Amino acid sequence: MAVFSQATNDSIMFKNISDEIFMNGKAYSNLRFLCKKVGSRLSGSTGAAKAVEETARMLREAGADTVFLQPCMVPHWVRGEKEVGKAMLNDGKVMPLNIVSLGNAVGTPSAGITAQVVEVKNFKELEALAPDAVKGKIVFYNFRMDPRHINTFKAYGEAGAYRGQGPSRAASMGAVGVIVRTLSPVLDDNPHTGATRYDEDKPKIPAVAISTNGAVELSNAIASGKVKNIYFKTNCQMLPDEPSFNVVGEIRGSEFPDEIITVGGHLDSWDLAEGAHDDGTGCVQSIEIIRVMKALGIKPKRTIRAVMFMNEENGLRGGTAYAEAAKKENKKFIMAMESDAGGFTPRGFGFTMHPSQKEKLLSWKPLFHPYTATEFTEGGGGADIGPLRALGTAMIGLNPDSQRYMDLHHAKTDVFEAVSERELNLGAVVMANMVYLISQYGL
Amino acid sequence: MAVFSQATNDSIMFKNISDEIFMNGKAYSNLRFLCKKVGSRLSGSTGAAKAVEETARMLREAGADTVFLQPCMVPHWVRGEKEVGKAMLNDGKVMPLNIVSLGNAVGTPSAGITAQVVEVKNFKELEALAPDAVKGKIVFYNFRMDPRHINTFKAYGEAGAYRGQGPSRAASMGAVGVIVRTLSPVLDDNPHTGATRYDEDKPKIPAVAISTNGAVELSNAIASGKVKNIYFKTNCQMLPDEPSFNVVGEIRGSEFPDEIITVGGHLDSWDLAEGAHDDGTGCVQSIEIIRVMKALGIKPKRTIRAVMFMNEENGLRGGTAYAEAAKKENKKFIMAMESDAGGFTPRGFGFTMHPSQKEKLLSWKPLFHPYTATEFTEGGGGADIGPLRALGTAMIGLNPDSQRYMDLHHAKTDVFEAVSERELNLGAVVMANMVYLISQYGL
Repeated sequence: MAVFSQATNDSIMFKNISDEIFMNGKAYSNLRFLCKKVGSRLSGSTGAAKAVEETARMLREAGADTVFLQPCMVPHWVRGEKEVGKAMLNDGKVMPLNIVSLGNAVGTPSAGITAQVVEVKNFKELEALAPDAVKGKIVFYNFRMDPRHINTFKAYGEAGAYRGQGPSRAASMGAVGVIVRTLSPVLDDNPHTGATRYDEDKPKIPAVAISTNGAVELSNAIASGKVKNIYFKTNCQMLPDEPSFNVVGEIRGSEFPDEIITVGGHLDSWDLAEGAHDDGTGCVQSIEIIRVMKALGIKPKRTIRAVMFMNEENGLRGGTAYAEAAKKENKKFIMAMESDAGGFTPRGFGFTMHPSQKEKLLSWKPLFHPYTATEFTEGGGGADIGPLRALGTAMIGLNPDSQRYMDLHHAKTDVFEAVSERELNLGAVVMANMVYLISQYGL
Repeated sequence: MAVFSQATNDSIMFKNISDEIFMNGKAYSNLRFLCKKVGSRLSGSTGAAKAVEETARMLREAGADTVFLQPCMVPHWVRGEKEVGKAMLNDGKVMPLNIVSLGNAVGTPSAGITAQVVEVKNFKELEALAPDAVKGKIVFYNFRMDPRHINTFKAYGEAGAYRGQGPSRAASMGAVGVIVRTLSPVLDDNPHTGATRYDEDKPKIPAVAISTNGAVELSNAIASGKVKNIYFKTNCQMLPDEPSFNVVGEIRGSEFPDEIITVGGHLDSWDLAEGAHDDGTGCVQSIEIIRVMKALGIKPKRTIRAVMFMNEENGLRGGTAYAEAAKKENKKFIMAMESDAGGFTPRGFGFTMHPSQKEKLLSWKPLFHPYTATEFTEGGGGADIGPLRALGTAMIGLNPDSQRYMDLHHAKTDVFEAVSERELNLGAVVMANMVYLISQYGL
């Protein structure tokens, strides 16, 4: 009689899960639907409402024991008509500016704003300027994302400060508008949006992103003394909050139903594209975990919840609501995992948890080696699951390859066609494998 | 006084190389030129001749001490006019077949061929058939690439037998033509070409690839008894051999000029697309190694040759000519590395060499960790450098992520736009780093 070790059995189950996903997976077709039939899903939009309905359906079709909606109020920011921007040159010519409003930003007056421009490379340069050099002007933050960081999230973190704090820091010096160089490591014509955050005690001034090519062109024009002033008009506004939902699909644990494993992505997306990698992929991968468990007849010992979080992009209300609901449940939220870094080939996982829990996960690492998730690193989780950390929940973030993500993140190029079916599936495989182990052995 | 260890110095050099490539790299713009200004480069074509000239220029611009052409005669296969295929159905309707001729295949008579079709899933099914069931018919190999293999090259290896040997094995049973299901893990409408190999003692029969969607559709039609017969017409032919060249750019070693490090990709490509991932990326990465060495003022102790091999796709004449020339040189070809698996994020390297050499390479492995080349595996090299192995040359193959390669390999979708600038550069970084170490320390 053959006696298999636990590791051998787990390794067989890993292979079963992988085979099932590669042979019969629904993540790719679900993603196609979400991108092509629903489309962009900014909080408060009809797209977001439709996405709630449709992912609830997908979870039911995947075989979830229970599917429920978890209410939350969300901000309702709208872009309005397409932005217009141009630089008026001293020779009378006009240079069009390829811009989009930053998310959450106020719009310009209906006549737009016209002002001289002052270019800075960073906050230090801005804050070294005399107040007169900024007052009444448009500040152009031309901070280039540093291409030398191998992990593009590091470069994004550095450059993100200009999108987030740039408007308020410029406003505090009297600026009337802000142009931020797009957060992308590549030179192209696609401006990327994304949330800005106004300080409540500062004037709220209009703020736009300009494409990377546009930033280079504008910078060159400024350097050559050609630019008289800048005009731009944005039509965005923040409307009253709207009711919305997280979507949750559950498989009830067979032995420890009160130990909850959360796995999710966020359902909302920016309005410029289809929210394929950000974060349609995390949603359909999470749904796929439910599907593969049911398809293989796995009865997890602990409860698994696949969660489509609402409003990650500009408010985190869904993540907050989930944690608040969790606090009220008399259950133990043992682990939460998020996939919100794109549907690319997995490189590994990042962990934020107790050292003894990490040790347990590290003992499983060899099992993941054939599935490309070879790097188990310190620190990780996700924005939506972050609020659960206060409950002591262990956090895991899926870390896919980061090379292509920032090229299309928050831009019109984040579409279904940019997702590889196999890469998406491989992410789902390693997520399902990790969820499987924790559902069997706890943490 | 600070004393740095060798590993520390190497790690600093790795970072310098990486920074230089990410800040000032030319691989991406060279690739754009090769794809958009030269285009497809099948052996013997004007594109191939132009590619020889242009990559010689790129090598000179990269700063190579010497650039030379190495002559070889190459096969000259031409596709001719676009192929036509259709299935005639019993109800009088016609189902178009989305086909392309396999490379090296003979064309049909000018009237095309019309015959009944017999579908088999594999050679076993074919060879279990009675001779009458095959004689005079078109054999349709509907072998699906197995999506369960995580490394797509494994699935490609299995399925490749049908493209390579399928025509002769069918011909030996009296078949008059062959249709092979496209070697791709995804369902789409793009037939992939690629070389077939006729046995000299068998009749040479026309052979085409059908898109994966087309294969499914044809198979369904056959299963439902709807198909009367199949017609297809191909216009390809093998013309007399043509003179061509490998392109070599060299940096002469400062201490051991007679120890040669070869690094390359192949310059020829199939005619359907731009040969971006196959193998424009390997070529421009190899050129980039020369460029980065010169840009950083590195004086390698051993000689480095970047080689654009001609005719990998349908003859390997360039690789053979390179090894023959090497035999005649009174030098030591210590290592050869090839990048011919696409310009995707590196996962690591594969090695074919003496155990003591492997041990040396393994001692360097930690240096590569920050640059994503974390997997050092047994077995590897490349088709073009293969003939050097007989001279005792150590072989290294760059192993990039394989998930997307087979989707576009040999198909019209293998274009510049399918290449990520950062992924391409990262491949060049780890190749340059490996070449740097071996140029300094030998093997």
